[in-house]
This record gives sequence, C-alpha cells and structure tokens, in this order.
Amino acid sequence: MEPGHKPLVDDDGIGAGYSYPRTPSMNVLLVLLGVIEALGVAAIAMVCYWTAHYRGGFAWDGTGQEFNWHPVFMVVGMVFLYGNGIIIYRFLPRLAKKKLKLAHAIIHKAAFVFSVLGLVAVFAFHNATGLPNVYSLHSWLGIGTVVLFNAQWVLGMSTYLLPFASRWIRTLFMPYHRFFGLVIFAMSIATCLMGLTEKLLFTINDTYSSFAPEGILVNCLGLTLVLFGGFVGYIATREDWKRQPLPEEQPINMSIE
Amino acid sequence: MEPGHKPLVDDDGIGAGYSYPRTPSMNVLLVLLGVIEALGVAAIAMVCYWTAHYRGGFAWDGTGQEFNWHPVFMVVGMVFLYGNGIIIYRFLPRLAKKKLKLAHAIIHKAAFVFSVLGLVAVFAFHNATGLPNVYSLHSWLGIGTVVLFNAQWVLGMSTYLLPFASRWIRTLFMPYHRFFGLVIFAMSIATCLMGLTEKLLFTINDTYSSFAPEGILVNCLGLTLVLFGGFVGYIATREDWKRQPLPEEQPINMSIE
Repeated sequence: MEPGHKPLVDDDGIGAGYSYPRTPSMNVLLVLLGVIEALGVAAIAMVCYWTAHYRGGFAWDGTGQEFNWHPVFMVVGMVFLYGNGIIIYRFLPRLAKKKLKLAHAIIHKAAFVFSVLGLVAVFAFHNATGLPNVYSLHSWLGIGTVVLFNAQWVLGMSTYLLPFASRWIRTLFMPYHRFFGLVIFAMSIATCLMGLTEKLLFTINDTYSSFAPEGILVNCLGLTLVLFGGFVGYIATREDWKRQPLPEEQPINMSIE
Repeated sequence: MEPGHKPLVDDDGIGAGYSYPRTPSMNVLLVLLGVIEALGVAAIAMVCYWTAHYRGGFAWDGTGQEFNWHPVFMVVGMVFLYGNGIIIYRFLPRLAKKKLKLAHAIIHKAAFVFSVLGLVAVFAFHNATGLPNVYSLHSWLGIGTVVLFNAQWVLGMSTYLLPFASRWIRTLFMPYHRFFGLVIFAMSIATCLMGLTEKLLFTINDTYSSFAPEGILVNCLGLTLVLFGGFVGYIATREDWKRQPLPEEQPINMSIE
C-alpha cells in the first residue's frame, strides 16, 4: 500500500476514507449550526417565559412553582445540552480529539444533572401535593429515556474516554453509540411533547381549544423542539460533515512495504 | 480497472461497494424483522382492543365511535404501514429493484390513504359535536407530519419511480430521501404518543393516576410504538444490511480498458 493512500482512521475507527472537505457545503454547515443555536435559545426562552409568565414563576417549596423547574430543566438538559453535546464535533473540528471527547462527555453529564434535577422537581411537587407518581405514558417514557441516556453515557465513557477498550472494540461499538445516541435524543424530544400536552390539558383545558395565547406559545415551543432535533439529527448523520482526524491523530503505519 | 473490481452501484446510486453479506448478522436481521412484525401486530391489536373495549367501538356517524377510527387508522397507516414500507428492501432483497420500489411506493400510498381517513374521522367527530379543530400541539405536528409525508412521497415517486430523473439526481437526492423518511416517521410516532396522552386525559383523567387498566394498556401501546420505531430505524440505517444490486442491475461498464 502506498503511504499516500493509507486510510484516515483514528483510534476510534471513525472518519475513515475522507479528506477534510473544503466545499460550499461547509458554509451550509456553519449556517445550520447558527440556526440550531437560535432554535435552542428560542426554546429555552419560550419555556422560561411560559413558566414564569403564565405558570407563576419559580420556587423550591413543593408547589407548582417547584414543578415549573421541571420543563425548564428538561428543555435545557435533555434537549439543548443533549443536542449540543452530540454535534460538538462539528463545531470544533480542529480541536484535538481527546479534548472534544471530554467536552462531549462533560456536556452530556451536565444534561444528566439537569434531568435529575428536573425529576426531583416533579417528584417533590407530586409528593407535597398528594399527586401520584409515574402513572402516565409521559413519565414511563421519560424515566426510560433518562435511564437509557445515563447507560449510554457510562458505556460511552468506558469505551472511548477510559484507556481500556481496544481499537477493535471502539470501532465495533461506534455505530451503536451513534444510533442509540440519536434514538434516545428523539425519545427525549417526544417525551417533552407529551409533557407539554399534559401540562396544557391540566391547566388551560377550557381555553386551549379557543386558541389561548398560552396554548399557542407552548405549541410553538413544541414545534421548535422538533425543528431543533431535526437539525441536530441532520448534522450528526451527514457523512461529509464528519470530523476528520488531525494529522497528529493518524495511527502510525508500522507495516513494512 | 479490472472488471472484477467495478463498484456495485445501481441506477439509484445506492448499495455501493459491498458484496452481499452471508454472515451471522443476516440471522440477526431476520430475527429483528420478526420482532418488528410482532410489535406492529401487537400495537394494532392494542389500539383496536382499546377503542373497541374501552371507548365504545366503531361507527361512521360523527360520534365518539367515529373518532375511534382515528387512532386505529393512524397506527395502521402512519406507523405500521409506514415502517414496513421503509424496510421492504430488507424483507425481499432478492426481488428486482423495480418491483421493490413499486411496493415501497404502494405501501406508503396506502399509509397516506389511512392517514387521510384518520383525519376525516377526527374532523367529522369535532364538527358534529361542536369541538374546535386544529388547536393542539398534537394536531399541529400531526397535520405537518401528514403534509411532509405526502410531499416526500411525491418527490420520491418523481425521482425514483418515474423515468425522468438522471442517475446523478437520484444519487444526490438519496441521502435526503432516507433522512427525511426517518425523521417524518419519528414525527409520526411522536404525534401518536401525544394523541394517546390527550385522549387519556380527556376520558379517564380521574382514574389514570390510580393506574386504571385502560391507562396501563395505552401506556403499553405507546411504548410498543416507540420500540417498533426504534427497530425500524435500526434496520433502515445499518450499513451492512443495505440491499445489494442484483447482477442484472449492475450498470454496464462501457469504458475501454
């Protein structure tokens, strides 16, 4: 094999066979990254405005004001941070792989912390007000999503961040890591949509059907979450936008030619 | 180029570069196809049992019995048929490409017919009983999903079934066709989950939180839809399960070597 044709495979077995693209499509990527951040910030602004303006604001006292942290933390953690953690490799392709992997893990750990705080908020509210826990489809899918998300994090860290897994294992596991990362992300957004639906029917059932502004706001929040998720999924799966290994990350070719 | 090394690319530019796998992973594929059909049939059985046993059965008279067709038609069309249409290429890899494409289009057209009937059922029910239309996040996302699904169908048929598009166009468009097919499928399932949540809160809000059997049944239906969608997504995206062109589907190599 000629040295010039050695495959561009790094330690995790990804980024094989492509030279780093310098095409107009990279401009599209940059625009889409901007669109994603705008959508994410808009979603956080909407969920904060909704809970602060229409639902009575925030507290940590077992009332509905404590519940209000639940949608805010879930949108921040399980949508905004989760999505950004997925595409961090597209934002900073020139950063060293090890730093990117660490950032990927830290952002997702932060997302997990938000999700746990979000669960604490809703359980505390239910327990303080005598409401039952974990009976709805929203809660079943939501808890399943958080559990799977954490399992994915632990498996990912064990495989790619700690030094124990062989390159063979890393390469073998990567398609599953990618696939489940996106599926759990989709589950997370679907759970949010169910949660928004639930909360609207619990609170403004009488006026929702006459297009109350609160209902329209939350509907728009839901569509924004879907758009955010769709763009993250597109950027994460488009082959020619995959991060390419830096020159110093190429495995050394030890074969005698 | 030696004839033995010509790339395996068919007219639509897919299935490039792989020899048809004869590995244990093909047995995994067959098992998963069986699991998918079992999940799909279970979902249809659950939605039928729910609406027939708990919600009063079926009619076409503007009452809640007409509404009951809505969840049944949507699960049959926008989940079961939609999912099976996506993976038809994995079921029958030895069938001629043209027949598979026709089957893919026909199954998805049938899914669209079911979705329209499902929309007719809910609009007729709302109009007959004086309920407003199209105010909920479920309805917004649902109608958006059906519109996008139909647009995807028309674009797919124009590009791949009619003889006008060049091979260059077909190859260029294929990643988008795949990506949007799966995203709209995920939107469809998320819309179903919101619809189940809505209907439970409209009908059994008092007993849902005390784990009424109807609520547990519908929760299980929701999880079954998620599992069905997850398996379809996995099968559709796994690279080594992609259908390979049959020998007679190879483009003829006209180059002089």
